[in-house]
Amino acid sequence: MSRAKAQTKQSSYISRDSSRSYFLAVFVSMVLVFVICSLTETLPSFQNRISTTGADTCNGEPPAVNRTHDPKQATFYDEPELTYTLGKTIKDWDKKRKSWLNLHPSFAAGADTRILIVTGSQPSPCKNPIGDHLLLRCFKNKADYSRIHGYDIFYNTACLDPKLCNVWAKVALIRAAMVAHPEAEWIWWMDSDAVFTDMYFKVPLQRYKQHNLVVPGWPDMVYEKKSWVSLNTGSFFTRNCQWSLDFLDVWARMSPRSPDYKFWSETLMSTLSDKMFPGADEQSSLVYLLLTEKKKWGDKIYLENQYDLSSYWVGVVGKLDKFTRTEADAEKNLPLLRRRRAEVVSESVGEVWEKYLENNTASEGKRPFITHFTGCQPCSGSHDPSYVGNTCWDAMERTLNYADNQVLRNLGFAHRDISHGSYVSPLAFDFPSEVLQRKKSGEEYNR
Amino acid sequence: MSRAKAQTKQSSYISRDSSRSYFLAVFVSMVLVFVICSLTETLPSFQNRISTTGADTCNGEPPAVNRTHDPKQATFYDEPELTYTLGKTIKDWDKKRKSWLNLHPSFAAGADTRILIVTGSQPSPCKNPIGDHLLLRCFKNKADYSRIHGYDIFYNTACLDPKLCNVWAKVALIRAAMVAHPEAEWIWWMDSDAVFTDMYFKVPLQRYKQHNLVVPGWPDMVYEKKSWVSLNTGSFFTRNCQWSLDFLDVWARMSPRSPDYKFWSETLMSTLSDKMFPGADEQSSLVYLLLTEKKKWGDKIYLENQYDLSSYWVGVVGKLDKFTRTEADAEKNLPLLRRRRAEVVSESVGEVWEKYLENNTASEGKRPFITHFTGCQPCSGSHDPSYVGNTCWDAMERTLNYADNQVLRNLGFAHRDISHGSYVSPLAFDFPSEVLQRKKSGEEYNR
Repeated sequence: MSRAKAQTKQSSYISRDSSRSYFLAVFVSMVLVFVICSLTETLPSFQNRISTTGADTCNGEPPAVNRTHDPKQATFYDEPELTYTLGKTIKDWDKKRKSWLNLHPSFAAGADTRILIVTGSQPSPCKNPIGDHLLLRCFKNKADYSRIHGYDIFYNTACLDPKLCNVWAKVALIRAAMVAHPEAEWIWWMDSDAVFTDMYFKVPLQRYKQHNLVVPGWPDMVYEKKSWVSLNTGSFFTRNCQWSLDFLDVWARMSPRSPDYKFWSETLMSTLSDKMFPGADEQSSLVYLLLTEKKKWGDKIYLENQYDLSSYWVGVVGKLDKFTRTEADAEKNLPLLRRRRAEVVSESVGEVWEKYLENNTASEGKRPFITHFTGCQPCSGSHDPSYVGNTCWDAMERTLNYADNQVLRNLGFAHRDISHGSYVSPLAFDFPSEVLQRKKSGEEYNR
Repeated sequence: MSRAKAQTKQSSYISRDSSRSYFLAVFVSMVLVFVICSLTETLPSFQNRISTTGADTCNGEPPAVNRTHDPKQATFYDEPELTYTLGKTIKDWDKKRKSWLNLHPSFAAGADTRILIVTGSQPSPCKNPIGDHLLLRCFKNKADYSRIHGYDIFYNTACLDPKLCNVWAKVALIRAAMVAHPEAEWIWWMDSDAVFTDMYFKVPLQRYKQHNLVVPGWPDMVYEKKSWVSLNTGSFFTRNCQWSLDFLDVWARMSPRSPDYKFWSETLMSTLSDKMFPGADEQSSLVYLLLTEKKKWGDKIYLENQYDLSSYWVGVVGKLDKFTRTEADAEKNLPLLRRRRAEVVSESVGEVWEKYLENNTASEGKRPFITHFTGCQPCSGSHDPSYVGNTCWDAMERTLNYADNQVLRNLGFAHRDISHGSYVSPLAFDFPSEVLQRKKSGEEYNR
């Protein structure tokens, strides 16, 4: 009886208050939501909240992705004519991708900044005896970077197009990756011999809102010097959009897939000022497309040289000890940097690092984001003859250990000597300030 | 003036309605939240909502993790006495980890099922000429599995304890990983030569609610036969909890770190019925702990043999073609299985696969979850002499390509012949049913 009474009372309550109470309730609800949001660390701006796709959540974070939700509604995957291979045009990709995202709302939220790193190497063992070991460690380096930043990574060892099992392999792989990964806004190609040397730098995606392909390069060297090394295709990223699909097809028309491959080879040799070897490679072809079809493609291609998206290793390796000193100085000066933390939130110090390095011009230099072992050819072993003896392999070992130190720090360890990957030591609490204190008191830090 | 007027009006509105309206507002807010939640695909049960830590969201999905949020409040990382190394006891770990999760609510949501896969190999190049190539491809295989299921993966090439640079290395690494990854509930060790051969199988974590260590094994072989191969430490996972930290310390007391290593070596030889080689290895030591301290540790150790957490490769490789036929049959029978989809939602077919294989006893066998190349020693090359010639390497190549076919399918390709990693072909739409149709009409499928 008392329960029925309470229900009746509640019902009459609502009907009596009618519209005035309704608007009040909505207002108070909004206030409540605002208060709840205010209690979280970051108060999301309304701008941000509007820009997401409806799967947004109370605390401003998009929800975790739902890997088991794949509704029955038809998507582009159900179109028999759609292929993962180059050459067969896909139409209305932007619309198709958007429809897929709408059917998968947990992926739609946060899609704008989602990156898939793709890399790979040949299917068979390397000729160079330590080639595969170096490739293994280069992959580990990329997997570390991807884990720290929450990016997906795909390592490919298959040749997806029998005519593109060389420098062009990346173009076929990017095309397939775009179709297989509609959740990713950017597909980031990394050569197997490119190494992340600043584990905490994040690419400034907001800079590329108007662009669809970001490649390290220098406009004057492209348009004035017409140099084949005016840009570098060892590390670049393309937006997962119709423009990129079209561009990849146009690009691949200069590859060995094309009946005009010989023509392109000769044309590149005669057009580019410093191309001394035959064959239309993917890097020279990209320079050529910028030179000859600037209006059509150039506006959407960002030549990035404000940070090292592909730094030449020769200029880097000699400075690794200097970078280490700079970083130790920074850690001594800023307790926040030397504070231990979980690896999953180690990205939080990235910006602190950046600011410190920018403001400390007296420091011994800023580590490059990515170091590329151009000319080393670790797998074949047939490096540029100017790199005598083990120069290349020693440099790769040092660079990989230098980068690994940034990862191991979160595990409580460090390579004492970056020339030898084998030896690591546990880090003392409050390192490196503790080291200083111990050294002052004559105590040894290392075991 | 009008703005001031409106503000005054609103204020008086609230004060006049007082408590009655307030309760109404709260009620309507709750109804609104309920309605919004109802509109999402899955209505979260209140049970689920209560079990999470407050960072749960309107649509029942936990929020995406926030990698930049690391509050200033002290955590266990700020305790000078806490180390990442074995031997120094950590106390109150469960409480400390919980406090960390409370400070990082985006990681607290979903923490129960979060897995970090850890694996690794020696710091230097392999002696076996194709050793590093096989390790590279084994790592790629694990990275593929991790990406498909959204797990993190860490590949270690450093020796974290100078006395444990052998089969015991995993124990030191797991200890460090637990401290460095409080967000992960489970740390899953995988030997470098263990290969995921069912990319879509997920370990049934709900089965292990009462357990802290899950290792493939057979109770009768442990307790009756006292065999050192009664379990396999090539693939096992431990809960990130106080019990595991304590257990790792006890386990490591039988390792070369211990002054009693020789004693343990002799004790294991005399206790275990079939241990024919000297040295206290980590697998024999685990069997010994189960035998002698069952009451203390055994109840929390799950010996898993209902699925292949570490299947012996010799019994697997000959069946790979049969598995391929079973899978093709399944795909021909169930359009859902052969439907193309984005890799990120490919996990959605895992359960469909499992059910099909369970219900089709006439099929040619179920692929193992993990295949372990025990005795092959791909890096040193000094395999068990009973595996003649290239048996081991050929078996690894075939197994890796077999597994890779499950990954490549989502990229629109397949290895035509799993004996050769080089050759892949694009898959026709609606494969394999399309193949049948084409074959019927005399048309070739492969180029």
